[in-house]
Amino acid sequence: MDFTKAETVLDLNNIREALVRMEDSIVFDLIERSQFFSTPTVYEPNHFKIPDFDGSFLDWLLLQVEKVQSQVRRYQAPDQTPFFPDKLLPSFLPNINYEKVLASYANEININDKIMQFYINEIVPVVACKDGVQPENIGSVADCDISCLQALSRRIHFGKFVAESKFRSNREYYTELIKAKDVAAIEASITNSAVEEKILERLVTKAESYGTDPSLKYSQNPQSKVKPESIARLYRDYVIPLTKTVEIEYLLRRLEDPE
Amino acid sequence: MDFTKAETVLDLNNIREALVRMEDSIVFDLIERSQFFSTPTVYEPNHFKIPDFDGSFLDWLLLQVEKVQSQVRRYQAPDQTPFFPDKLLPSFLPNINYEKVLASYANEININDKIMQFYINEIVPVVACKDGVQPENIGSVADCDISCLQALSRRIHFGKFVAESKFRSNREYYTELIKAKDVAAIEASITNSAVEEKILERLVTKAESYGTDPSLKYSQNPQSKVKPESIARLYRDYVIPLTKTVEIEYLLRRLEDPE
Repeated sequence: MDFTKAETVLDLNNIREALVRMEDSIVFDLIERSQFFSTPTVYEPNHFKIPDFDGSFLDWLLLQVEKVQSQVRRYQAPDQTPFFPDKLLPSFLPNINYEKVLASYANEININDKIMQFYINEIVPVVACKDGVQPENIGSVADCDISCLQALSRRIHFGKFVAESKFRSNREYYTELIKAKDVAAIEASITNSAVEEKILERLVTKAESYGTDPSLKYSQNPQSKVKPESIARLYRDYVIPLTKTVEIEYLLRRLEDPE
Repeated sequence: MDFTKAETVLDLNNIREALVRMEDSIVFDLIERSQFFSTPTVYEPNHFKIPDFDGSFLDWLLLQVEKVQSQVRRYQAPDQTPFFPDKLLPSFLPNINYEKVLASYANEININDKIMQFYINEIVPVVACKDGVQPENIGSVADCDISCLQALSRRIHFGKFVAESKFRSNREYYTELIKAKDVAAIEASITNSAVEEKILERLVTKAESYGTDPSLKYSQNPQSKVKPESIARLYRDYVIPLTKTVEIEYLLRRLEDPE
C-alpha cells in the first residue's frame, strides 16, 4: 500500500493485508503495556498538578507527543487521526502530495474520544499485570499507553478506507442506502462474520505466540504475557464494532462529496 | 526488580530476567522498523532544513522526545540514559526517592553516541525491508528508530547494574584489578561465553517466533519479518560488546566512590 497512489490504498486486498499487519503492532504494544500496573492515577483528570493544563497525565503526555509528531507531518497522512486535532503545530517539512483517496470530510470522522474511553476502561484492566500504582513508572505507563492508543486509533480509523473502497465498488447501491439513512442495511453490507471469526482466531494465536518466550516452550510451561482469549474478546467487543462505527459515519456522509 | 529498592536491582537473577525481557522489546521494535525502507536521509546531518537546529532529522525528533520525556522524569530513573543529557528539561512531578544503587558518577557513563553509530550503520541496513527512501514515511521511520535506540540504550547501559553487582560481591578482587587498570582481567571476569551463547540461541528463536504470523505457519511457508540469524549476529557483534564497554568503563572508575 502506497499512500501517494490512491488505487493501492483502495485495493481491498491491500487494506486487508495492512489490517492483519496492524494486529501484530497492537499485540506487541499490549504486551509492552502488560509489564506495568494498571496505574489509574495516570488516567484521572487533574490527579497530578500540571502547570497550565487541565486533564489527565496521559492527556498531557499524548498532547506533547502529538505536538511533536505534527511538526513532522504525522497528521497530514490520511491514515493518522489525532486525539487533539485543534492543538497541532505546523510542520517545517515540505507538504506531501497525497492523492485524494478519502472524501473531503474524512478528517472530521474522529472517534478517538471513544477509543480513549474503551482503552482506559476495558483494555488497561485486562492487560495490566496487576492492579495498583507504582509511582516511579507513570511515565513508562503513559508511554506504552500512547503506543497502544495510536495503534488502535490507526486500526479503527482504517475503516474509512474500507468504506470508501466499498462505496466506489458499489456506488449506486450505497447511494440508495445513504439517501434512505438505512444504517442497518449499511452495517449488514460491511459485516462479514466469517472474516471476523478468522480475525479473532488469528489474534488468539498471535497473542499466544508473541507473548510467550519461545525458548521456554519445551522446558517449562510458560504463560503468555497477555491473555490470548482476552485480546480476541477486546477485538470482538470493541475494535471491530468501533471500526464499523467509523465506516458507517463515513458512509452516511458520503454524498456530501460528489466525487 | 523494583528501582526504589536497591537489593532487588543488584540481584543478578533479577538483572538477568530484566535483560531477557528486554530482548522481547528490542525484537518487537526491530520488527516494527522492518516495515520501512532504510531511508538514509533521516540520518544525514542537515539533510532537511530544520529551523534553529544543526543535526539529522532523527536527532531533531529524538531531542524533542527526550525533552518531553524528561519532563515526566524519565532520566531520573537509573536505568535510563539520555542521548542529549545537556538539553533535558525539569519535571513538574515530585522527585522519586530512588535508593542509591550505582556509583555517583554513573550518569557520566554514557555511550549513546556509539549506540547511535552502530544503529545507523549496522542495524538499519540489516533490518530495513528495502534500500531507499519513501519521503512520506520519514516520520514513521524516525519514530521506530527512537523506540529501537531507547530499547538498545537501556539494554546496553544495564551493564552498570551488572558491574555494580559484581563489584559488591567481590570487592577486594575488583579493587585490585581496578588499581592495576587490568582491563583484560576485568573483561575476563565479566565474560561468560556459555551465557552469551544462550542469549544468541534465544534471540534466533525470538526473532523467528515474534516475526512470523503464527496463523500462516501451516498453510504457507512464511518468512520472519526480520532475519533471525542477523539479529543474533548484531547482538554478538555489538550489543554484547557494547554492554561490556559500559561495564568496564563503570568498573575502572569504581574506586572514585568509596561506598
